[in-house]
Amino acid sequence: MSIKSFLIGSPIETIKEKHERLSKTMGLAVFASDPLSSVAYGTEEILFALVVGGTAFLNYLIPIAVGIVILVGIVATSYYQTIHAYSSGGGAYIVAKDNLGTYPGLVAGAALLIDYVLTVTVSVSAGIAAVTSAFPTLMAHTVFLCLLSILFITIVNLRGVRETGKVFTLPVYIFIGSLLLLIGASLMKSFSLPQVQYSELKETTSNIFPVFIILKAFASGCATLTGIEAVSNGVKAFKAPEAKNAGVTLVWMAFMLAVLTIGIAYFSHYYGILPNQNETVLSQLARTIFSKGPIYYTIQFATALILILAANTSYSDFPRLSSIMANDRYLPRQLSNRGDKLVFSNGILILGILAALLLVLFRGETHLLIPLYAVGVFTAFTLSQIGMVKHWYKDRGKGWLKSAVINGVGGLVTGVVLVIIAVEKFTHGAWIILIAIPMLVYLTRKMHQHYLAVAEQLSLTSCITGENAYSHHSVIVPVSGVQQAVIGAIKYGKALSDDVTAVYVYIDPAETQKVKEKWDTLCMGVKLEILHSPYRSVTEPIIDYIESIREQYKDGIITVVLPEFVPTKWWHHLLHNQTALFLKGILLFKKGVVSTSVPFHLRK
Amino acid sequence: MSIKSFLIGSPIETIKEKHERLSKTMGLAVFASDPLSSVAYGTEEILFALVVGGTAFLNYLIPIAVGIVILVGIVATSYYQTIHAYSSGGGAYIVAKDNLGTYPGLVAGAALLIDYVLTVTVSVSAGIAAVTSAFPTLMAHTVFLCLLSILFITIVNLRGVRETGKVFTLPVYIFIGSLLLLIGASLMKSFSLPQVQYSELKETTSNIFPVFIILKAFASGCATLTGIEAVSNGVKAFKAPEAKNAGVTLVWMAFMLAVLTIGIAYFSHYYGILPNQNETVLSQLARTIFSKGPIYYTIQFATALILILAANTSYSDFPRLSSIMANDRYLPRQLSNRGDKLVFSNGILILGILAALLLVLFRGETHLLIPLYAVGVFTAFTLSQIGMVKHWYKDRGKGWLKSAVINGVGGLVTGVVLVIIAVEKFTHGAWIILIAIPMLVYLTRKMHQHYLAVAEQLSLTSCITGENAYSHHSVIVPVSGVQQAVIGAIKYGKALSDDVTAVYVYIDPAETQKVKEKWDTLCMGVKLEILHSPYRSVTEPIIDYIESIREQYKDGIITVVLPEFVPTKWWHHLLHNQTALFLKGILLFKKGVVSTSVPFHLRK
Repeated sequence: MSIKSFLIGSPIETIKEKHERLSKTMGLAVFASDPLSSVAYGTEEILFALVVGGTAFLNYLIPIAVGIVILVGIVATSYYQTIHAYSSGGGAYIVAKDNLGTYPGLVAGAALLIDYVLTVTVSVSAGIAAVTSAFPTLMAHTVFLCLLSILFITIVNLRGVRETGKVFTLPVYIFIGSLLLLIGASLMKSFSLPQVQYSELKETTSNIFPVFIILKAFASGCATLTGIEAVSNGVKAFKAPEAKNAGVTLVWMAFMLAVLTIGIAYFSHYYGILPNQNETVLSQLARTIFSKGPIYYTIQFATALILILAANTSYSDFPRLSSIMANDRYLPRQLSNRGDKLVFSNGILILGILAALLLVLFRGETHLLIPLYAVGVFTAFTLSQIGMVKHWYKDRGKGWLKSAVINGVGGLVTGVVLVIIAVEKFTHGAWIILIAIPMLVYLTRKMHQHYLAVAEQLSLTSCITGENAYSHHSVIVPVSGVQQAVIGAIKYGKALSDDVTAVYVYIDPAETQKVKEKWDTLCMGVKLEILHSPYRSVTEPIIDYIESIREQYKDGIITVVLPEFVPTKWWHHLLHNQTALFLKGILLFKKGVVSTSVPFHLRK
Repeated sequence: MSIKSFLIGSPIETIKEKHERLSKTMGLAVFASDPLSSVAYGTEEILFALVVGGTAFLNYLIPIAVGIVILVGIVATSYYQTIHAYSSGGGAYIVAKDNLGTYPGLVAGAALLIDYVLTVTVSVSAGIAAVTSAFPTLMAHTVFLCLLSILFITIVNLRGVRETGKVFTLPVYIFIGSLLLLIGASLMKSFSLPQVQYSELKETTSNIFPVFIILKAFASGCATLTGIEAVSNGVKAFKAPEAKNAGVTLVWMAFMLAVLTIGIAYFSHYYGILPNQNETVLSQLARTIFSKGPIYYTIQFATALILILAANTSYSDFPRLSSIMANDRYLPRQLSNRGDKLVFSNGILILGILAALLLVLFRGETHLLIPLYAVGVFTAFTLSQIGMVKHWYKDRGKGWLKSAVINGVGGLVTGVVLVIIAVEKFTHGAWIILIAIPMLVYLTRKMHQHYLAVAEQLSLTSCITGENAYSHHSVIVPVSGVQQAVIGAIKYGKALSDDVTAVYVYIDPAETQKVKEKWDTLCMGVKLEILHSPYRSVTEPIIDYIESIREQYKDGIITVVLPEFVPTKWWHHLLHNQTALFLKGILLFKKGVVSTSVPFHLRK
């Protein structure tokens, strides 16, 4: 208990919920770390895809970056509308479910949940990659450092929303500031240095359709858009007026994303930076401009931090989305409970565990995971925009057509991008997601069916009378010898009913004789039945005896009272037969039988 | 249940115990596989130790082998006496405990238990090494093959003693037969081939004290004696007259061991076989005599089988010794129960698990484990012989002096060998055992103290009256809503007492209002208490309420009746809050409170 309170802090009362909300400044820090962090690897991913065709293809970097920024603008505008239409939190799941039906909603929800887990893994491993770029000796400890980071973020998030915001505000703004400084300095230096020119074409290139390479590069760059939907899921985390604050935050986020993306892409191209496996593109650019001085290290450090913190956006959204889905009975109910600190602790823990598993599975290699991860986001984008078009059409309020057109364009564009990504990245791992989403949807359906079935079986309609429902109450006390623990059980049994029988299983003749004699001399006031057991099983004869009593009193109830040792140390449990536990497990399935443990507290 | 009966077979009645006993032929197969198998690597271990000093040292092989055979004779004679003195099974543990006191007994017991686990691991990995010597492509799967073998032996042993004997009789006799054939053929061939002469001395040898090398080689060869005490622990497994049959088996075993040890050592030396890492000495000898034909493969195969089966001797002794120690309350009680097939199933399972763990830890490398493993056996030898001396002295029957002298010489010799092994092998891993034995002894003491403390707390002396012991019986039913499962709990509560209260924890205001209204309209006939929970905990307010009731009725008893869902599929458990389970866990530690689950059976 004290470890928990040290790590997580003291609990927060329910009525304090409003005090825990985020301001715009904090909100930007919490929700923008994911989208902004992709700036750190977006350009690199595009370059890696382009360089396959020879350096001449690198000239397509700027147009692709512009295309991605336009996409950011379209998606942000669409979501701005969504936030105002669904001011109580309108993630893709809710919008799609409300307007398109259950299945599209579940697909969007599943896609996002999977994506949030991937985001944590990718961000953390990319962040640690930035650290190991600067300090190569740490390379051997990659997986360990990644797991440590996940543990840290998990604990910080369990401490509550506002504390999380506080911890993460500074690094986000340092990152933004240092990247703006990098872009500014790159601009200054560009006056004195000429632009690098590319012309080389690989021999093989003539055979490959060039559009393919460009589309693949574009698909790679679309990872930049992941996380942009975060604000729309988290509207409720903002201070009132929620929708307005969330909207302003979204606009700022999109603006910063556009400036940084264009800036990094432009100057990477200008200074002729080529992608390589040992140093990130951003590190190369920073080194070119500032050489390996304090500013370079600040940028590397801030990048590492923001990448690790990008995971934090998922920590804000995964628990929130899963609690919404759990409230709709599409996920386990436990996900809908708020913990001690008013956050959805179970969701936070599950996210941490899943991300850690994925990380160990992929051994912290970012490149293997990135292809998996734009598919989910764009599925959610598309479904949510199409849902919004339907929403405006149903509503047909003032200016509905304009809104519908904006969302329609958004849905169309993201839909096309989704198809591009799915096709281009299919063999790189996107197929995993295209299998995982339907599987998760299937699981949510199964859970939902179970909850519906339970609700139906539990529903009460008739009136209950206060009469005693049973014609007879038999109490059976299985005993393993004549000792103190048995006394407690028999005393309790006598408090329940007048028909109390103790049963003893005969295995060893000498032992049995001793028990019989002791029973009589110690005048327990209760009759002792001796049950034979040719195969040395203790449980079977007892179960048979209970069955025979059940036959005898068909409208009665049977209580089996079991003495249960409560040792002072946990390992003492290992030293005692767990027969009672086993017996209780079997009795659970017998109708008309209730089993009770009377604790016997050992003092040492 | 059907998987279990397929693997293990149908249960055996207790009265059939005598039918399950072993004849001498079967007994030799069960108990001799361990000592005889060491023939397969004993010579090799000696050669590895000698060759360090140059090939000239190989001339000491024969004297060392003769020394070991003499040791076998001494130890076997000592144990022959022990078997007749302790005809109900006189392992080192019993003999040392009876005559020298508790601690020497526990040390002997701990040493043997550790050794049995090591035997399984060493035998199985040596057996698989023989297989991979013949088929090098299997080398990569060593650990997997080892684990498979352990699994197989464990299952066969769980099927019962006699069935185990049946399975293992043939391979043991094939091994003995084929090695005798090898020795015979070696003898025939020696008439036509001259003996290889050794003279080379390593440069460094002059510095090393030659006695050191010879003592080390002798210590290595002493691994041959492991398993020789097996019969003395297992006297009870033989048909009547137990002591006589066990004694005859022991004599035969020692005789076979002597013949094979001398034979293999002599001809290995004669044909100039040098130890090497890729092929075993036995394989080289067999190849020299028979070349790689069918007889060679038969010998390799029989060696592999006997080595794997050597593990089987431990499977016979570990469960038996641990059941004896458990009956004395020095190990967990569960080890003293006979399972369905009249064997000590828990001991068999634990041995299998420990051996598998050790195997994975050491990755199946025999050489790392062998040094660990003579220490335990010789500790047990020495303690048991000294114990026997004391036994004869206490008894002072006819011919006691002769018996005492025999055991005294045995104890002295094995004691000296123990010191040699412990010193020579200390840095090679024997230190692990010298730490493990005292640790296990400490654990057994701890367990014993716990059992004594429990026995004292449970002991009954006073007479119990049949009166109702409690002045009041309060029944509390925590409810999570108004539904079918609650009805069952309330009905049952009303069968227990007239004072039944339902409690509901207030977290969501709207929900609470609904529950209150429904409660009244459905006239449950029981009052509903609403408990406030500012921190959203469900358990805390309920515990507080129970405490207040306990204050109110100081001599009363409280029963907390909890509705418990019994779903149709195991994974449905994950979909429900485990609050009831958590609450029961806490209530276990409250005096005067008993918790009861009333099962509610879901139909789908």
